[in-house]
Amino acid sequence: MKRYEAIAQGISESIASGIFRPGDRLPSVRDTSESRGVSPSTVFQAYYLLEARGLVQARARSGYFVSHASTVQSEPAASEPPAHEHEVEVSELVFQVLGHARNRNLVPLGSAFPSPSLFPLPKLALALGRAARNLDAWKTVEHLTPGSADLRRQIALRYLAMGCNVDVQELVITNGAMEALNLCLETVTGPGDLVAVESPTFYAALQALERLNLRAVEVATHPRTGIDVQSLAAVLERHPVKACWLMPNFQNPLGSLMPEPAKQALVALLAQHDVPLIEDDVYGELYFGPHKPRPAKAWDKKGLVMHCSSFSKSLAPGYRVGWAAAGRFAAAVGKRMLMSSLSACVPAQEGLSEYLQRGGYDRHLRQLRQALAEQRRLTVRLISKHFPSGTKVTQPDGGYFIWVELPQPIDALELHRLSLSQAISIAPGHLFSADHRYSHHLRINFGHPENKQFEEAIKTVGKIARALAAR
Amino acid sequence: MKRYEAIAQGISESIASGIFRPGDRLPSVRDTSESRGVSPSTVFQAYYLLEARGLVQARARSGYFVSHASTVQSEPAASEPPAHEHEVEVSELVFQVLGHARNRNLVPLGSAFPSPSLFPLPKLALALGRAARNLDAWKTVEHLTPGSADLRRQIALRYLAMGCNVDVQELVITNGAMEALNLCLETVTGPGDLVAVESPTFYAALQALERLNLRAVEVATHPRTGIDVQSLAAVLERHPVKACWLMPNFQNPLGSLMPEPAKQALVALLAQHDVPLIEDDVYGELYFGPHKPRPAKAWDKKGLVMHCSSFSKSLAPGYRVGWAAAGRFAAAVGKRMLMSSLSACVPAQEGLSEYLQRGGYDRHLRQLRQALAEQRRLTVRLISKHFPSGTKVTQPDGGYFIWVELPQPIDALELHRLSLSQAISIAPGHLFSADHRYSHHLRINFGHPENKQFEEAIKTVGKIARALAAR
Repeated sequence: MKRYEAIAQGISESIASGIFRPGDRLPSVRDTSESRGVSPSTVFQAYYLLEARGLVQARARSGYFVSHASTVQSEPAASEPPAHEHEVEVSELVFQVLGHARNRNLVPLGSAFPSPSLFPLPKLALALGRAARNLDAWKTVEHLTPGSADLRRQIALRYLAMGCNVDVQELVITNGAMEALNLCLETVTGPGDLVAVESPTFYAALQALERLNLRAVEVATHPRTGIDVQSLAAVLERHPVKACWLMPNFQNPLGSLMPEPAKQALVALLAQHDVPLIEDDVYGELYFGPHKPRPAKAWDKKGLVMHCSSFSKSLAPGYRVGWAAAGRFAAAVGKRMLMSSLSACVPAQEGLSEYLQRGGYDRHLRQLRQALAEQRRLTVRLISKHFPSGTKVTQPDGGYFIWVELPQPIDALELHRLSLSQAISIAPGHLFSADHRYSHHLRINFGHPENKQFEEAIKTVGKIARALAAR
Repeated sequence: MKRYEAIAQGISESIASGIFRPGDRLPSVRDTSESRGVSPSTVFQAYYLLEARGLVQARARSGYFVSHASTVQSEPAASEPPAHEHEVEVSELVFQVLGHARNRNLVPLGSAFPSPSLFPLPKLALALGRAARNLDAWKTVEHLTPGSADLRRQIALRYLAMGCNVDVQELVITNGAMEALNLCLETVTGPGDLVAVESPTFYAALQALERLNLRAVEVATHPRTGIDVQSLAAVLERHPVKACWLMPNFQNPLGSLMPEPAKQALVALLAQHDVPLIEDDVYGELYFGPHKPRPAKAWDKKGLVMHCSSFSKSLAPGYRVGWAAAGRFAAAVGKRMLMSSLSACVPAQEGLSEYLQRGGYDRHLRQLRQALAEQRRLTVRLISKHFPSGTKVTQPDGGYFIWVELPQPIDALELHRLSLSQAISIAPGHLFSADHRYSHHLRINFGHPENKQFEEAIKTVGKIARALAAR
C-alpha cells in the first residue's frame, strides 16, 4: 500500500467508526502534512482518493468535509458461496436483460454498456474514414489474426506506460474482449473441466462456461477488495481447478478493486499451482483514483496470465476491437481465433491505430473518468436517500456499476418486473451466480450521466423497493 | 435442369467423346435454334455456359469454336472416401499455408483469398467514413447481435432476388462467414457428435470439428457436381449423423457446383432424417454462368438449412461482416453469438448497408466474375500446357480455385516445399481431408489476375512437378 493510500484508509476508518461525522471538516492539508511527516502532495492524493470514493467533498476555499452520504450506506459483506462445484446453466433472463438494454425508451439502469454519448465517436469516425481511404489493400490480408502490427505496438506501449511488460508477439487482436476471454478459456480447458470464478460473477463468464460444458466453483469475494486469495487457495487445494476467470479491476457487478498486494499474492498462488488466470480487465481505464490500477498481469513471470481487454468501454463502443495478451498461450489463442472468426475488422483496427497515434485518447479518458466519478457520487447519494433502510451499496473506485444489497424479503426479480413497467431496466442479482443466490441484489449502471431521467428512475426504483420492503 | 443447361450438357458430352474436336466450329445459333426448337436466346445461354466452362470460345464475327484446352485435361474422378467415422486433427500445415498466404512476396497460388485489388475498396471506404460520421451513437448498442436492421433488410432483399424467401428475423450478422458457420455447428451439435462433410473438404470445416471435439464422416463428392446424394443417403442410414457441413456452390477446394435437382434431393433427404444442413455459400456470387446458382436453402421448407455467407469474397475483404440465415435455429444462433463475440463491428455493418443502398454492388460483381472467369480459362490452359501428362484438373463454373490431381508418384507436400523455395505458395491436397488422403493433389488459387508473376509461377510449379514425376 502506498503512503497516500494508507492515510486515506486511516481517515476512512475514522469515518466508518464515527470519529469523523458527516459535515465534519478534515484537518487542513498543511496540518496533516506536518503531523504525519509527509509532503502536502501526498496528503492531497489521499484526499483526492477519499473524494473519489465519495467519502469526503471539497468545498471551494474551505477545505474537505465528510460527505453526508458516507455513513448512511454501509457496504455489503463479502460473499460466502458454498464450496461445491456445479454445472452451469444461465437462464433466459440474461438475454432478456441484454435485450432491454438496447431499448432506448427504457432508462438503462440494467444495461451492461455505458452511454455511447460518453465517447468521441465523431473523432473516431474521422480516423476510421481516413484509415479506410488510405488502406493498402493488402492489409486486408496482412491484418488478419494476430492483427495489425501497428495497433499491437500501440497497445504494447500502453502496457509499458503502466509498468507492465507485454511483448507485441503476445498480443492477439480479437472481436472485443468477450471473444478474447472466450478464446483464452477454450484454449486452456476441455469439456467437463472446473473453472474458479468470483461470487457474484459476470454473467458472461457463466455463459462461456455453459457454452463450453465447463463447471464452476465460486470463490468468496469482498465488494471492495475483490476475490479472497486465501479462500481461493483453499479451493485450489480441494478442487482440480483448470483455470480462473477473474476481474481484479472494478469487477462486474461488484466494482471491487483488488489491492496490489492481493494481486501479487494471487499471481504467486496460481504460479505455484500452475493454473492459468484469465484476467478480464475491460474497466481498468475507468479508475477514479489518481493512478491507473495495474492488472494482475503486471506480476506474472510464468506467462500464466492471459490479460484480456478492449476499447469498447473506454473509447470505441461498437467497433468490436479487443485483445488478449495471452502469455505462453498466445500462439494457441491466435490459432483458435483463426479457427473461429478468423480476424477482427481490418478498417476498425486501422482506424483505432490511427486515432491512438494522433493522441487525444488520454485526454478523452480523463473526461470520461471525471464524468463517471461524479455520477457515482450522485448515484450513491440518491440510493441512500430513496432506497429502503437496510440497503447496502458498494462505492466502487472505478467502472460504472454499483452493487446494491436490498433488505432480505425483497425479490429483485419482482423489482425488475415492476421497474420495467415504469420503463426502467435493472439487472437483478440472479444473473450473477449459477445458483441465482443473489436474489435480493441488483446491479445499477450509472454510466449514463446525460440521461435526464436517471435521477427520477433511481427514485422510482427506490420507491418500488420501499413498497416491497413494507409488504 | 433448365433447357439451356441440357443443350450445353449435350454439346459438352459431344466434345468429351470426340464428336466435336478442338478448333471445330459449333453450329450457328440460328441452326441450333431451329434444329432443337428453342429460342435463339436459349441457345446463346447454352453457348455462354460452355464458354464460361472453357469448353468453347467465341471469335468475333465467326461464331463459337471448341477450345484447344478443352480436351487436353480430363477431370478428376469422384472421391471414394472410406465409410468409417474418424476423429479430426488437422495438422500445423494449415496454419503454415495460411501464414504464407499473407506474405506479399510470395505468388499466392496457395492462398484462400482472392486478390484484394479486385474489390471496390476506395468506394467502400467512402461509404464507411460517411456511415461512421453519421452514426447515431445509440446504434452502437442497437446494432449488436442480431445486427443492423437495415443491413439485414438488404441481405433479405438479395435472397428474394434469387428466389429464396428468407425472413429478416432469421438473419444473424456475424464476424464473417467463418463465425457464422462455427456458431451454427456449435448450436446443433455437442462433443463427440458426428458430422458429414464432403471429400475433399474445406480445412476450416475440419478445424471447426476438431475445435468442438466432433467426429467426421466424409462423403463421396464429384469434382463437377458436388456431393453424391445417394452416398450421403447411405451414410445417413448407417451413421448417427447430427449435422452436415456442405458447400453446394463452388465447393472449396473442388469448385464443384451441385445441379438444382441434386440440391433439391439433398434438402429432401435431410428433411426426412431431420438432420440440419450448415450450408457454406461464400462463393455463390462468383458464378461464371448466366444465372446465380440458388443455394440448397431455396428448397428448405422445415427451417433445417442454416445458410452462411459473407461479403468477404465478393465485396469487402477484411470488413469481417457475414451472416447466417439460420432457419429454425436463428434464435439459438443469435444467443451463441451474444455469448461468444457479442457482435460484428457496428461501423462496418453501417458502411456496408450504406454501400448496398446506393447501388453498384451488382456492377462490381459483374466485373469481378468476368475477371475471374477469364483467369480461370488462362489457368486451365497454362496447367494443361506446363504440368506433367496425366494431370487432371477441375474446370469450375465459379469461385477462384482449381483442384489439380497430379500423377500418382508426386507428393504434393514435396511440391509445396520446392515451390516455396521459388517464392510460390500452393495448397497441398493433404489439407483437405482428416486422413491426408489427397497426397498428390493441390488447390490452385487463380484469383489474382493482376499478379504479373502468376503465369511464370504456374510454369515453375509445372516444371517442378514434371521433374518430380520423372524421378
